[in-house]
Amino acid sequence: MSANKVHIFDTTLRDGEQVPGCKLNTKEKVELALKLEALGVDIIEAGFPISSPGDFESVSQISAVIKNATVCGLTRAVQKDIEVAAEALKGATRPRIHTGIGSSDNHIKYKFNSTREEILERAVAAVKLARNFVPDVEFYAEDAGRADLEFLARLAEAVIAAGATVVNVPDTTGFCLPHQYAEKMAYLVNNVKNIDKAILSCHCHNDLGLATANSIAGAIAGARQIECTINGIGERAGNTSLEEVVMTIKKHPELNLYTGIDATQLLPMSRLVSETMRMVVQPNKAVVGDNAFSHSSGIHQDGFLKEATTYEIIAPEEVGADTSKIVLTARSGRSALAYRFKNLGYEFNRDDVDTLYGCFLKVADSKKEVKDEDLKALAETHLQVHA
Amino acid sequence: MSANKVHIFDTTLRDGEQVPGCKLNTKEKVELALKLEALGVDIIEAGFPISSPGDFESVSQISAVIKNATVCGLTRAVQKDIEVAAEALKGATRPRIHTGIGSSDNHIKYKFNSTREEILERAVAAVKLARNFVPDVEFYAEDAGRADLEFLARLAEAVIAAGATVVNVPDTTGFCLPHQYAEKMAYLVNNVKNIDKAILSCHCHNDLGLATANSIAGAIAGARQIECTINGIGERAGNTSLEEVVMTIKKHPELNLYTGIDATQLLPMSRLVSETMRMVVQPNKAVVGDNAFSHSSGIHQDGFLKEATTYEIIAPEEVGADTSKIVLTARSGRSALAYRFKNLGYEFNRDDVDTLYGCFLKVADSKKEVKDEDLKALAETHLQVHA
Repeated sequence: MSANKVHIFDTTLRDGEQVPGCKLNTKEKVELALKLEALGVDIIEAGFPISSPGDFESVSQISAVIKNATVCGLTRAVQKDIEVAAEALKGATRPRIHTGIGSSDNHIKYKFNSTREEILERAVAAVKLARNFVPDVEFYAEDAGRADLEFLARLAEAVIAAGATVVNVPDTTGFCLPHQYAEKMAYLVNNVKNIDKAILSCHCHNDLGLATANSIAGAIAGARQIECTINGIGERAGNTSLEEVVMTIKKHPELNLYTGIDATQLLPMSRLVSETMRMVVQPNKAVVGDNAFSHSSGIHQDGFLKEATTYEIIAPEEVGADTSKIVLTARSGRSALAYRFKNLGYEFNRDDVDTLYGCFLKVADSKKEVKDEDLKALAETHLQVHA
Repeated sequence: MSANKVHIFDTTLRDGEQVPGCKLNTKEKVELALKLEALGVDIIEAGFPISSPGDFESVSQISAVIKNATVCGLTRAVQKDIEVAAEALKGATRPRIHTGIGSSDNHIKYKFNSTREEILERAVAAVKLARNFVPDVEFYAEDAGRADLEFLARLAEAVIAAGATVVNVPDTTGFCLPHQYAEKMAYLVNNVKNIDKAILSCHCHNDLGLATANSIAGAIAGARQIECTINGIGERAGNTSLEEVVMTIKKHPELNLYTGIDATQLLPMSRLVSETMRMVVQPNKAVVGDNAFSHSSGIHQDGFLKEATTYEIIAPEEVGADTSKIVLTARSGRSALAYRFKNLGYEFNRDDVDTLYGCFLKVADSKKEVKDEDLKALAETHLQVHA
């Protein structure tokens, strides 16, 4: 069976840019959009056109320059929003309007002071209106993670009948466990009669640290689009990390899924977004953190030096990173020490390394990291004493 | 049915401390251990005693001061390691030796140049030796995530028969998907005859961003201990985040699981570890990131101000954080603007807010965040013009 493509929908410029302190100007947004297209993203959510004149301008300019990827604009299920988004997307080669409304009883009651029937009507009207402007309309059932399943299925069926090409199932509050999110997706696959006419999409938030697992579980259950951001930035604890879902799919061929992303651009892209948006990536961030390819404990370094796959499932060059690092600390062992001495041009025999290791540990216990200059001092002292 | 306790095994001071640049001195380690005990951690992995004289001293001093939690020391399946660990743990009220060896064919071949049978013998011998010193011995089957299932079950049965009280199933390279990790755990539950005599433990790494999901999946499948670190620090992309597994279990009572952690100490603990170890926590980190409780987009702010649960599944005070933040950016809406004006003492009517919103958006489009002083300037100008 040929593998199934999972479309990567990047919302760094929309859901990511909502983050406090991350606002971009139009020039920055256009530059990032071009890089996202080069990365191989299928859909770029460029902004929320009605939210501000600046955002309208960004969506409009991105629409003008992006040729291969779909350019998407967010709206509420509100006439004015949809008209303004259509206007902003006018120059796009492949425009998409992303409209939607709350689908959980919590949202229906507290946000809309409305009823399920009324929400259904508004959803259908919004999709129909959007389809008057563009052939590609995605519908989001906000807070689907907490929505009643039967109602969610009715809503999906109604918006697909109204012309939606993609149905987005957001776990807006990041509440679902992976098996729960997968069950929702599977329920829609099995209970929405016209589901073959639309693509199901995962949109997960990371409030419990489960966004990547939920998105993958959703794709296993039948979704063929994952919405994500570079470095997992976004409202609160952020969105699904693009780099994590891409590498999980790549490392698990048994899932029979693939994406169109060029993984070797992941690290440069992560750095660019971090710098442009001034959002720090923690050193222990999966795939793109500074330490993702550093080995420092003795057991790990020893194994890694014998055979990299003992402790490394992603080779650094696969994601555009430099080579793996062997960092010397008080937890490092003899093999790592010998390796680093060798890199500095010192060839010591086993007895020498044993002696040097004792001295090394004394230095290491007083420092966070033992650097090249410390090693040189150790080596030179040793050579003088044993000359 | 009464809920099942999941023991929290914190390895911030061992697996976390292996991180480049994170080395702690003995005084810092003892202070953190006392805080971990106050947090409600069941087991504190205090170090790897044979790795350096400093680490031996730390385990020894922590053993002397910790009264309620179990204090654990790491070893390889090597006689000298175990003897040194036993010595370091001598003063502990509840000492545990954590010993183990590689269990995947990859590790057996490349790290040990050995065979499955020989590994089994070494594992049993190590556990027996450790049991001569302490009644509580945990065995880790390193790289269990990639190990042959039948062999893993044989190994587990043999070490339990030899006296292991806990069997740790590490996904050392962070490779497993949640359903795969759960299947491994379930296989052990169902195929290891003496499994009722030991607790199964999850030890997951975050290379693909799946550590939390894998640990939870493991607990659902029957594991009753989760190994984790504060802020998810650790080798490469780090370990499972303590705060994420604790809050996931707390927010999902349907799992029928609980932990002994006092969640209100999670944020202060996160800050303390970040500062002491100089490891940055990214703003979009789940549960403890700076933005975890910030709302900035218009749709979210509007919903949040009507009813917090629309966008918030964890109340900030639950984890010891300040109140939720309403941050004003170009993506904010009228309700957030009115709310912030009200907090500053300005009561505007609907028409006023409409007018002010246009002016606000112009300011917001040129800034990352609109602060109180900007709002005051807007309000005062408005009041003069409309006086």
